[in-house]
Amino acid sequence: MKLFWSSRSPFVRKVMIFAHESGLADRIVPERTVVAPAKPNADVMRLNPLNKLPTLILDDGSALYDSRVIVEYLDTLHSGPRLIPKDGPERFSTLRLQALCDGILDFLLVGLSERARPEGQQSNELKSALAVKFKAGFDALEGEAGRLAKGEFGLGQIAVAAVTGYADFRYGSERWRDGRPKLAEFAASIADRPSIVTTAHVDTY
Amino acid sequence: MKLFWSSRSPFVRKVMIFAHESGLADRIVPERTVVAPAKPNADVMRLNPLNKLPTLILDDGSALYDSRVIVEYLDTLHSGPRLIPKDGPERFSTLRLQALCDGILDFLLVGLSERARPEGQQSNELKSALAVKFKAGFDALEGEAGRLAKGEFGLGQIAVAAVTGYADFRYGSERWRDGRPKLAEFAASIADRPSIVTTAHVDTY
Repeated sequence: MKLFWSSRSPFVRKVMIFAHESGLADRIVPERTVVAPAKPNADVMRLNPLNKLPTLILDDGSALYDSRVIVEYLDTLHSGPRLIPKDGPERFSTLRLQALCDGILDFLLVGLSERARPEGQQSNELKSALAVKFKAGFDALEGEAGRLAKGEFGLGQIAVAAVTGYADFRYGSERWRDGRPKLAEFAASIADRPSIVTTAHVDTY
Repeated sequence: MKLFWSSRSPFVRKVMIFAHESGLADRIVPERTVVAPAKPNADVMRLNPLNKLPTLILDDGSALYDSRVIVEYLDTLHSGPRLIPKDGPERFSTLRLQALCDGILDFLLVGLSERARPEGQQSNELKSALAVKFKAGFDALEGEAGRLAKGEFGLGQIAVAAVTGYADFRYGSERWRDGRPKLAEFAASIADRPSIVTTAHVDTY
């Protein structure tokens, strides 16, 4: 399988951590790809009209996206313990946590795009709202961190790792660890896992 | 169950069409709610730090979001035929189609927010890119429409209905039917379903 990939994308990172944890990483060939909300990439759009990473290209040439669909697909390809609970309350609390993490990543990316606009095109109202959501989002993760630290390392842990890693990469000045000791401890406890080390963000695409 | 709801949200509409099709609509109490990217709503954020609709509040007071998680949860609550294929290639083609539709809705919403900014804060580069994605996204749906028209009415059809309905509601001048006869025919063929009629967008929230 081929993956439209970038070391700067947190959703790509979620997929790659998942691939390493499920023993599938060596079946995925990453292809360095540049996409930007305002710059459609024709090669990506042929397979994914949303112009987004990650996009997984299967051996029959068809594509799967977005990251949620890809991780669920990957979970069917290996014979180890499932990283996504198959059903019941556990499944829905995991999926909700993934939705929370994906939503936080979405607004972190919106914040970056906003900061990249010419000064006069930036919206202070939007930036203030993003700051409110940053605080609320990370506070919610602090509330989940104790449970995550006790559970098996699965999709919930991976989704949170993608968020904290991206915040360190792009929002270091926000100091998310301040006042969130459990989340900080969880992030520290997973920092040496090979899946986390190998997939670290690098600011050259 | 209670649903943070608005008649203007396409993701709420997706959930409500799903609820009607699965016979669960009378178990959901919609609560009119206003959210905006730049205006956090404290009542929503207490349960969903992303400040987004739809958010489903279960009888035990816990919340489920986003729309994808909600529809999957709803599909476990009824005894009729599943609206989301349980596994296999059918599941992944349905989930990919939902991801495509959700992604189209995301950029339609981004386009609305962009148009709502003060003139000087708008980005022409972003608006051009959205136009390119609009065309590519709807062309991809045209490619799916024949298959959808033949299949049972399930999540894929519902997701597409949410997109075409929202385009009619907010992007009428784009005339998405032009050059896309199969998609136009599919939309016409479902227009009289009670789940579609009952959930139509109204521009008073």
